[in-house]
Formats: sequence, structure tokens, C-alpha cells
Amino acid sequence: MPIVINRRLVTVLVLATVIAYSNVVANPRTQINVEDLVEIRSAVASSPSFVRYLNETRKRIDEYFAFSPDVPVPRDPGGGYTHEQHKKNGIAIYEAGLLSLFTGDKRYANDAKQLLLSYAALYPNLAEHPVKRSNYPGRMFWQVLNEAVWLVYAIQGYDAIRSALSEAEQETIELGLFRPLADFLSTGSPDTFNRIHNHAAWAVAAVGTTGYVLDEERYVQLAFNGTNLDGSAGFYQLIDNLFSPDGYYTEGPYYQRYALMPFVVFARVIDANQPELQIFKHRDGVLLSAIYACVDLSYNDLFFPLNDAIKDKGLNTVELRYGIAIAFALTGDPSLLAIAQSQDGFVLTADSLKMAQAIDAGHAEPFEYIPRLFRDGPKGTRGALGILRGDYGKTDQAAVLKATSHGFGHGHFDRLNWLYYDNGNEIVSDYGSARFLNIEQKEGGRYLPENTTWAKQTIAHNTLVVDETSHFEANAEVADRYYPEVLQFRRDRPIVLVRARTENPYQDVRMERLLALVENIAEERYLVVDIFSVESNTEHQFDLPVHFEGQYIATNKQPTSVEAETLRPLGERNGFQHLWLRSKQELASGETFLFTWLTDNRFYSVITSTDSPSQVLFAQLGANDPNFNLRPQQTFIRRINNAKRTTFVSVLESHGEYNGAAEFTINNRPTIKNLKFFENDVSQLLTLETTKNTIFHVAFSRNRDAESRHVLVLDGTSLTWRGYASAFDGEGNQI
Amino acid sequence: MPIVINRRLVTVLVLATVIAYSNVVANPRTQINVEDLVEIRSAVASSPSFVRYLNETRKRIDEYFAFSPDVPVPRDPGGGYTHEQHKKNGIAIYEAGLLSLFTGDKRYANDAKQLLLSYAALYPNLAEHPVKRSNYPGRMFWQVLNEAVWLVYAIQGYDAIRSALSEAEQETIELGLFRPLADFLSTGSPDTFNRIHNHAAWAVAAVGTTGYVLDEERYVQLAFNGTNLDGSAGFYQLIDNLFSPDGYYTEGPYYQRYALMPFVVFARVIDANQPELQIFKHRDGVLLSAIYACVDLSYNDLFFPLNDAIKDKGLNTVELRYGIAIAFALTGDPSLLAIAQSQDGFVLTADSLKMAQAIDAGHAEPFEYIPRLFRDGPKGTRGALGILRGDYGKTDQAAVLKATSHGFGHGHFDRLNWLYYDNGNEIVSDYGSARFLNIEQKEGGRYLPENTTWAKQTIAHNTLVVDETSHFEANAEVADRYYPEVLQFRRDRPIVLVRARTENPYQDVRMERLLALVENIAEERYLVVDIFSVESNTEHQFDLPVHFEGQYIATNKQPTSVEAETLRPLGERNGFQHLWLRSKQELASGETFLFTWLTDNRFYSVITSTDSPSQVLFAQLGANDPNFNLRPQQTFIRRINNAKRTTFVSVLESHGEYNGAAEFTINNRPTIKNLKFFENDVSQLLTLETTKNTIFHVAFSRNRDAESRHVLVLDGTSLTWRGYASAFDGEGNQI
Repeated sequence: MPIVINRRLVTVLVLATVIAYSNVVANPRTQINVEDLVEIRSAVASSPSFVRYLNETRKRIDEYFAFSPDVPVPRDPGGGYTHEQHKKNGIAIYEAGLLSLFTGDKRYANDAKQLLLSYAALYPNLAEHPVKRSNYPGRMFWQVLNEAVWLVYAIQGYDAIRSALSEAEQETIELGLFRPLADFLSTGSPDTFNRIHNHAAWAVAAVGTTGYVLDEERYVQLAFNGTNLDGSAGFYQLIDNLFSPDGYYTEGPYYQRYALMPFVVFARVIDANQPELQIFKHRDGVLLSAIYACVDLSYNDLFFPLNDAIKDKGLNTVELRYGIAIAFALTGDPSLLAIAQSQDGFVLTADSLKMAQAIDAGHAEPFEYIPRLFRDGPKGTRGALGILRGDYGKTDQAAVLKATSHGFGHGHFDRLNWLYYDNGNEIVSDYGSARFLNIEQKEGGRYLPENTTWAKQTIAHNTLVVDETSHFEANAEVADRYYPEVLQFRRDRPIVLVRARTENPYQDVRMERLLALVENIAEERYLVVDIFSVESNTEHQFDLPVHFEGQYIATNKQPTSVEAETLRPLGERNGFQHLWLRSKQELASGETFLFTWLTDNRFYSVITSTDSPSQVLFAQLGANDPNFNLRPQQTFIRRINNAKRTTFVSVLESHGEYNGAAEFTINNRPTIKNLKFFENDVSQLLTLETTKNTIFHVAFSRNRDAESRHVLVLDGTSLTWRGYASAFDGEGNQI
Repeated sequence: MPIVINRRLVTVLVLATVIAYSNVVANPRTQINVEDLVEIRSAVASSPSFVRYLNETRKRIDEYFAFSPDVPVPRDPGGGYTHEQHKKNGIAIYEAGLLSLFTGDKRYANDAKQLLLSYAALYPNLAEHPVKRSNYPGRMFWQVLNEAVWLVYAIQGYDAIRSALSEAEQETIELGLFRPLADFLSTGSPDTFNRIHNHAAWAVAAVGTTGYVLDEERYVQLAFNGTNLDGSAGFYQLIDNLFSPDGYYTEGPYYQRYALMPFVVFARVIDANQPELQIFKHRDGVLLSAIYACVDLSYNDLFFPLNDAIKDKGLNTVELRYGIAIAFALTGDPSLLAIAQSQDGFVLTADSLKMAQAIDAGHAEPFEYIPRLFRDGPKGTRGALGILRGDYGKTDQAAVLKATSHGFGHGHFDRLNWLYYDNGNEIVSDYGSARFLNIEQKEGGRYLPENTTWAKQTIAHNTLVVDETSHFEANAEVADRYYPEVLQFRRDRPIVLVRARTENPYQDVRMERLLALVENIAEERYLVVDIFSVESNTEHQFDLPVHFEGQYIATNKQPTSVEAETLRPLGERNGFQHLWLRSKQELASGETFLFTWLTDNRFYSVITSTDSPSQVLFAQLGANDPNFNLRPQQTFIRRINNAKRTTFVSVLESHGEYNGAAEFTINNRPTIKNLKFFENDVSQLLTLETTKNTIFHVAFSRNRDAESRHVLVLDGTSLTWRGYASAFDGEGNQI
């Protein structure tokens, strides 16, 4: 353990169109080369979907250059006018450049040139940006990161139009803009450039690409080896340290997407210029694995919103448009074409054009979302993310267990957190980040204070909170030092499961969670089993929340008390101050609690019990939120007071249909009406009773050996199985 | 006034395929006749979209009859097992019957027959339904309404298979089931049958159709003339009294859809059997107008949720599938095909088949949603519903002013309420009804207590509440007696508007509201102008809420107070007890208040002022809701204390774009930054200042004469216009 699934053939095909590093200035050095060009101009017409996107881009760029774009003196932070204008200009230089290659229309080369000349006049006069909010300030932008991103775009645009410029113009632009900018990003900003961090990846890609384009070996060397030129930093260090062997990026999917872009774009440039480096084969093809990982780390085209994440980010982002096109160029995998189709647009590269042609030729095949375990950490030893899927379509059931490392500054304090999806929707959800990206009225579009006071706190997640404090006391530096341990992972039906444990988030508290999808028991789809065990030598309060999306339908018992006329916060700190308590339900030890809600057109029921007296608290987000920054999400929390140990057992069922248009409702109650639980050091046994009075047993071994044999005798019935788990009917027959 | 728009050519084409009333028992009497049949079986194959639906229906019906369907002894209310089972059986008889006609497969006739024989055995033994919740109880169902609906389906199914039955079987079914059922619904339930009410329409359609099918003239006479056979009740009375001359149904769009079904289905049966009655030409073709009205009363395929309404009901309901197919058969209007396409399915009638063929042949044209005024009341004198649209696409801006009559028992106390839609979404919304339709856990799927305590109350709507009491003290019988008056309606750009007034909801309080879409001022789309005037001889508290959908972004001023740590209800009764007060903002007389929110990917800003000191209260729904029945919607309320009169002036702007995937935000602030208002008895003048310091004037006349000329001199600038309204630039030039 952990188990690595090598489902996909990660054979890196040699690109058919690479050309050698040469001195022909007219030959673009980045993502398109001269040989491509001839092919491109004749091929474009043959791909209707690419032509559509090309025309959209033309229209956008034509409008953009209808009047000379403003090149303002830098003034504003992210979201402000000058910030956004410079961002747009950088992309416009890039897109105009690419359009000049794809269409042969000289107007685009001229548009890009004029803008570059304006920057060549502006840039040498810039001092540090007037907005002092970043430890790593830029000149055009308030943070150096944006400046690096800008250069990645602009240098490629320049590369595409250079052959249309006079030598004097080239000199003006290179000396006035690109060299000072590349110097600033590298030797001028060593703290950023030499970090093992995604900001460094952008700077390295920017400087390295500039090196290839300007035929400046020094920049290429800086990009590969860091400012000390000793290999202690630079591109290989970044690849080797930021991605796990499975291609997982430790900050989580949202930042993986963002971090991926400079890696794949720069790697593609390297491959075009120095194919002998076989950069895409480096470290067993980890960059390709990282692209695939982005797809696996999504549900219904949106990324799992783990850690700081904007929830509307998904596979249709520009980063993944590059990534998928490059991955398709490397593998020819037809299931990537299905992803590209859902991206609803292309980037203007030769790789994208080839992908568009393949789509238009009808070569797309469905992408199969299979269960996967993504190990975290450079060596894969820092925990893992377990993704359980029943069926393999993009809107089928999926459950995710987060047992990764913390994820640095953007990490959330959510060890053993889980998410659940079904029917295309979030069902048990993560708040993501508290941020209105780029909306200036909301803290300038940056992270909101509630990102710290709510979104990062443990109670904002579907995992255990001890004594109303967050994991690691919400100290990221401490959290970064420890990793959970994944004990079991199984991808085969009828029981797909992952089990992990951790003992670091709290002193003297050991937690273990099993998450499983179990086939053949519920009337519809897979049953989700969640078994969360906690034990300590001292007494604690344990809170296990479920943040559910949708409308509260019913519980099996009336609440003991309801806060109908006054709402007060559930607690005072660590996120509890943001929850309004709405109702409280007292439960005896072993008493089952059933809650049904409705999401979209489907019902979801959790049936749960613990082996201690407990409470179920329903709460709604929004307390202590004077600026209306939080969404009014709902949660129910299972709470146990003063216990040394307990196990929360629950099964979640997806059932029925509500159809308001056709006026019918079916299966509005779950199949499972009761559960019993037994556990010891080696096994856990769940006995389920259905509304038809049928009995099922689901037995789990806690042994890490996937092949071990187990026997459990229950009221005279022998349950015998091998491996991590098995399900049985009431007579003890495996099902 | 009011103005009637006769946009559509309501020429009723003579149906090409009608046959005369005859005695051929083998000839189906309802929606398909023998001549059709030959055509149908050969035509089906030529329409891929119809075949798809036919196959879906076959699959569903094959599954349904895989085992003999249960015909249980009645026991449960709506949502319960026996209720749903009987409903399903009725539809199954119908669909199996139709399938036997469309496919010629004898299996379907046999399936329908067996089920009918079971009912013929069951029905004679039934007494009144054991659930005593309705004043009009049925036998199979808890209310007689469901029994009538059941018969409408079952009799058509029987009609389709009758020629496959022996005479003995026919006698068993007719004597055991259809005759007793038709007797029960008519002479056995005269209170229902003779009402001027949609429940009567179902009973009349059921009994009348039974008459045609069984060749029983008595039932046909009952259907046309009521149980007294004197024409004081029955089908013509229902048509003449339930629809306005414009085809508006007084209960509102949600019930219009439901009410429409028996009318159009029965009219189609009449037309097939007695074409000489020219039923679709009756009263200037009002049934056809009523079908079209359903389309006009929708936004993005969903009905305006006025009065008691489930918000996910729209054009894809079965009722409208019949309606649109019949309307297409009558008119051949190709824009109806676009509606049929969005319905995503067909009913099994000859009309539908012809419509499917036309769609498959590519004849569909876009349906143009134009501004319309729907007069209410049998003579069109009971107020009206004004629908303003800027552009005519189904996701373009739309604003609705409700100045209709109350709408009987399902009416809400919301005179001069308005709704606003844009970008495919609800922006300023109506709660609809508080009901989880057919979800048994929620009060058996019936209306919830909160429908009375919240959803019907005035504060739940976007209209004026005086002294925290609802219109007409929430007494529906009183409310039904009075009607608002529509003073102006204009459908022409650049200013589309409606103005209405009422003085009945409160004693000694006169209210007037102008709602307008104004072109050419805001940078994007139409500006929505809302001017609400109220006056009284005594002092009152005035509350004008805006229930907005989406996320609070910002206001132009910090709130005076925020309830961050304790929430309490805003009031004690009349719906106020369900709102949690979140913040309060004090405003001086004439001070502008600006609030921006985000819905989907677009920003909305309201800028508002009044001529009195006022408050803005933000509130969230959910107080005094022990069963979690209410959705956590948000509202802001403009409040004025102790005033005899005031005018609330506001402009709403739709602007910008938030794009989380592509990471950009544009125009996150509105164009309009300030407003001034002047009014006298004859005019209202709005002066708007933009962020670019441009001035616009929008002048409104209060004169009911659409042709009158007006001059207004403002600081030396003359504004001259004719008619209801005009917009001017800062120099007084009309724009």
C-alpha cells in the first residue's frame, strides 16, 4: 500500500513535427514551427470546429484592436483597471501573433507589434508597483506572478510575428521589454524564481521560453538550473518536487490546473527546441500524468473544490485546453477528445488543430472515470487522495476521501474530509474558498477574511472536529509537516473503498475513516458507507458535520428543540461562530437517525448511528457575516460530548425522483431503514435492514493485506471472505 | 385602454382530417379517427423524433405491464401509494390504448383491457374515499378532481381499443366502470360539475368524452349544459367565464396550464365528432388564445410563478404538449414548432405526429416573445397582466406587472407585484407556492402551512405592504371583489411600459406603479424603471420589498447596523414572522441607495431613492420555520415610517459579466450612479447621471391618452414629447 493504478498507457509518442533548435530567426520557437505552418494553413479549413474557434478569436481580436489598446501606467491591484488592461494586452499580443500565423493576415502582426512597441517604451521606466500588498511585487502588476504570466503569453506572440519585424524593431522590443523583463523575473527576483512553488514555475517558463525565442542560452540555463545555475532550483526541481509520482499537485485540483499551465507550455517549447531532452518522458512521464490527473480530479467537468478553490473552475479552463491538446499530441488517446469536446473551445496551437481535426473526424470516445488513488508528495509518501466511482460516466456517483498532505498556504484543515457527487451534482460538498474572484467590490477580488475564519477551518468540511478547534490549531506550517496514511484502496466492484488514518491533527486523538461504494444492496445505484472511528485517552467533544446541498425534506424524528424565533451562533471561534444553530436532536446510544434531502430531482438519505449518546445539530451558514460574504449553506453535525472514543457509522442512499413538470414522485423514501454495527481490531461489520425486511451484511477487514482471509460468526451465521470487504445476504451468502 | 395586441393571426384552419359523427363502433371517437390511422401507421416511420418518443412510450408501457399492475383498494391521499397507483393505471390505460392504434400491436389492447376489467370489478364496490380531506371527495381518489382526470385518460384509452373487445367485455367495462363513473362525476357530484372552476372543466371533459365514446347523448348534453341541462353550467359557461377575451385564466399561469388541458382535449374531441359546432372558433377563438397565452406567460420555458405555483412547471408539461399540438393543427404556425422542440417529447395523437413531421422537416421558426397585455376577467375588465420584453428571445429581459384580479383560492395578495428576468434567470422573483408537490413527507405533498403564513402574504411579493398587514387583510373573498386598473400599456421601443393603480387593498391608500424598460441609456440592455407611488390621508408604515435571486455583492454605504450575532424575526405576523432581519440602513430624504448583486454570471444593480427619510432592511427567509419548509431566500425592503405619501423610484441595471472559468470580470459596476426624480399630477421625470457624467432624462406622462402632447421645462431645458414616455439626453434631445 498504497496501490498504484496504471490504467492508462503512458507511452509518449515521438512528435511527428518537432524541429531541431536552429538559428533561423524566421522560424517560430514556441508551439508552432515552420513545417507546421504549411500544414496548418491548409488544414484549418478542414476542421469546422477549429475554424469556428479561430473565427471567434478573430472577431474578439479585431474588436480589441479596433482602437489602439490602452497601455496604462500601472496603478491598480488585481481586478482594477490597469491590472486587467495589462492582462488583456498580454493575451492580445499572444492571440494576434498566433492569428498572424494561422491566417497569414499581416494586420495581426502589425497589431501585436504596435502593442509590443508601446510596452518597450513603458517598461524600462517602471519601478516597483505602487500597490504594496504582495511580498513579491512586480512592476506592471502588483505581484510578480502576473508579470511572469504576462511574459509567457507575450513572448509567444512575439515569436509568432518576429519575422515580420525589422531588425531595428526587434532590437527595440527585445532590449526595451523582453530582456529587462526576463532579467527582472529571474536574477531580479531570485526569491520567487528559486522557490519550489507554482509562482516559480511561471517565472521559469517565462524566462526559459524567452531564452529559446531570443536565442539567449543564459535564460534557458537559468530556467533549467535556477539563478545559482547549480540545479538547486529551476524546471527539473519544480517538476520533481511539485508533482507526486501519480501527477498529483499538492495544493489540490484547483491550483493543479493553474500550476500545470507553465509546465506543459514550457515543456512543449522545450520539446520543440530540444527534443533530445525528452522532457515529457522525464520522471516516467509525470507531466502527462499530471494532465490526466486534472481530468480524474473533476466531476461533471468541474474540479473537486478541495483547499482554496473557486467552484466554477473546471476542464474548460484555458490551462486545460493547452494541457489536453498536448496530451493528445503525445498519446493519441481518443478519450481525450471527449474532454476536448466539453471544453467548448480551442487554443491556437498546432496541437489543438490536430485535436480538432480528430474530433471532427468523429474519433472521440468516452472518457472513463475510474476509481483512482493519487499519492501525494514528491515521492508519493505524503498521504493520498482516494476517488471512488461506481459507474464510470462523468455524472455517475463519485466519492472522494482527502487524506493528502496539507497543501501549503492554500491548504484547508480538513484531514479525512470527504465529498460525494451524484446525478451531475454536488451532494455532500466542500465550501471551496471564500472569495469572489476578480470582483473588485469584494476585497478587490482577493480571498475574503471569511476564507480564514470559515472556509479553511475544519468545521467547514465533512470531517471530525475535536473540542471545537481546527486540525493543527489551523497552523499551516505545522500541518505541512504531517501526512495521513492510506491503509486500503480497492477499485473493484462490487465494493470500491478507501481507508485512511491520521493521528496528527490533534494531540492524543487517533482517527480512521473508511469510505466505500457498495453495489447490489440499495434499490438504485451504490450505497455509500462511511465509518469514522476516533479514539483518545482523554474525553473530548466530537463533531462530525455533513454539508449537504439541496432542500431539507424530513428526519425520522421530530427535533428535540428548534430555534424558530432567535438564531444564535453555534460557537465562538474556529468557524463555529459562522453557523446559526437551527435545531437539536438528542439520540440515545445506538439509536438510528435518518435524514432525507432533495438535490435537483433526486432524493438522498443518510441513516446513521453511533455507539454513544449523541446529538444531531442542524445549522445554517451566515452568522457573523456583516458583509454578506457567505453563502447560506446547510449542514448537520453529529455531536458527542465527553467521550474517549466512538465510531460514527452512516450509509447514504441516492434514491427516487422528483419530477415537478410531470408531477410525479417515486421512491421518496430510502431502501435501508435500519443499521447495526459491530467492530473489533480486525473487522467492522455493518448489518442493514431494508424496508422489505431483507437483511444484508457488509463486512470490512482492517488488515492492510488485500489478500488476507477472514471469518466472522454472527448469531450462528458464518461470514467468510478474502480481502478488504465483502457483502452478504441474510444467510451469509456473498453477493 | 387597455390596449389589445392582436399580433398573431388567429385564423382557425379547418382540420383536414375531421370525420362526421357516425355510428361505427370500431371508429375511435376521440383524438384519432380511422382515416388518420392508415396515414399514421405509414407516417410514423417518417418522423424520427416521433418514433423516438413512441419507442420511449413503448418501453415505459412494456415495463409497466411486465407484471399485472396492482389495482389497490383506495386508501391513501395524494402522494400515497394507492393514489399514485391509480393515477399511473389511468395513464397506462390511455397510453397502451394509443400504442395499440399507433403500432397495431394487439398486446397493448389486451393490457389496457385487463386493467379496465379490473377497474370494472373494483369500481362498483367503492364508497366514498376513506381520506376525508376534501369538500369534494372521490371514490378512487381523495378528491373528485383526480377521478375526473382519471376518466379523461381512461375513456380515451378505451376508445382506442374498443374494436378489439368482445361485446360482452364492452358491456362489462361500460356498465361496471364508465357509466357509474360518469354518473358519479356529473349527476352524482353536481357541486363540482356545475361550478365555474377548473375542477368542473375536468369533470365536464370526462363526462362529455365518455358521451361521445359510448354514443350516450345524455352525457354529451350534461357536458354542454350542466346537470340542470339548462346551459347554466357546462362547457360553454366554463369557456366563457374562466378565460378572459385574451385567453388569460384568472388563477394565473400555473393553473392556466392545468386548467387548459380538459378544455383543449375535450374541444378536440368535440371538433372530431361535431365539427359543425366550430368549437375552436367559439368566442373569437379564445381556446386558441389561451394556448398561446401559456407560451407568453413563460420565461425561458417556465411559467411566471404567480399565485400558487410550483416553479419547475413550464412548457414541457403534458398539458402544453397537447395544447401546442392542437394549436399547430389549427394554425400551422411554425413558431409553435420551436415551442414543441423545447418540450422534448410528444403525446400520442395524430396532431402531435403531424407536428413532429413538420419539426423533422425543419419548418420550426423562433417564437417571438413580444410585450403583451393580458386582460383578466370574462369581459376583460378585471385588471390585466402586463408583460414587458425588450428583445424577443426567450432568455432576453422580461418584466411582469401583476395587476390582475385575485385569482380565487389560489390567489396571492400581491396587487401591483412585479417580476424581473434576464439572461435566462429569475432576478427579482416570486416565491411561488410553499409546497413540495407529491412529496409525501412534506404534508402529503399538499400545500404547506407556510403557503398561507408566507407565500400568499403580501410581504412575500415585490409590492407594497402597509402597516405590516397584507392586502385585503389576506381575505380572498374580499380580494376577489376588486380589481386594479391598468392605465397605460405601450409595447413599442425605445420605452416599453405598463402603468396600473389600485386603491382597494387597504382602506384609504391609493397606489400606482409604473414599470418600464428603457432602451439607449444603460451601456448594456434595457434599464428597468420602477416608480411606485402611494398616498393616503393618514400616516402609515410603507414597506416595499425586492426579493432578489443571487449573491449580495455590495451596497454604496455601510449598513447602519448589522445583526451579526443574533437573528430575530422582522415582525410577528402576516409573513414578517418568517423573515430574519440581517441589516438596517438609514437614508435621508432623497439619498440614493445602490445595491449590486450577482446572479449566475451577470451583475444587477438597483439604484433607488424616495422623497422621505427611509430605511433599507436586508432580510433572509427562514424564521419560524420549524420544519425547514422554506427556502433561504433574500430580500431587501425599503421602509418608510409614518408618512402619508411617498414615491419609491428605482432603476435596475443588468450589467457586466463574471467568468470564473476564464477568470475575468467586466463592468462590475452599473452605468447609472445617481438619480433625481420630480413628479406632479400629470408627469414624472427621472434624471439619471452616468459614471461618465452624462445626463439622461426619462419623462413619463400620467395621462391615459396615448397621443397627448407634453412639455416640461427643466432648468431652462424644454422636454417635449407625445404619448406615455420619452427619453432625452442632457440637452433635451429625444433619444
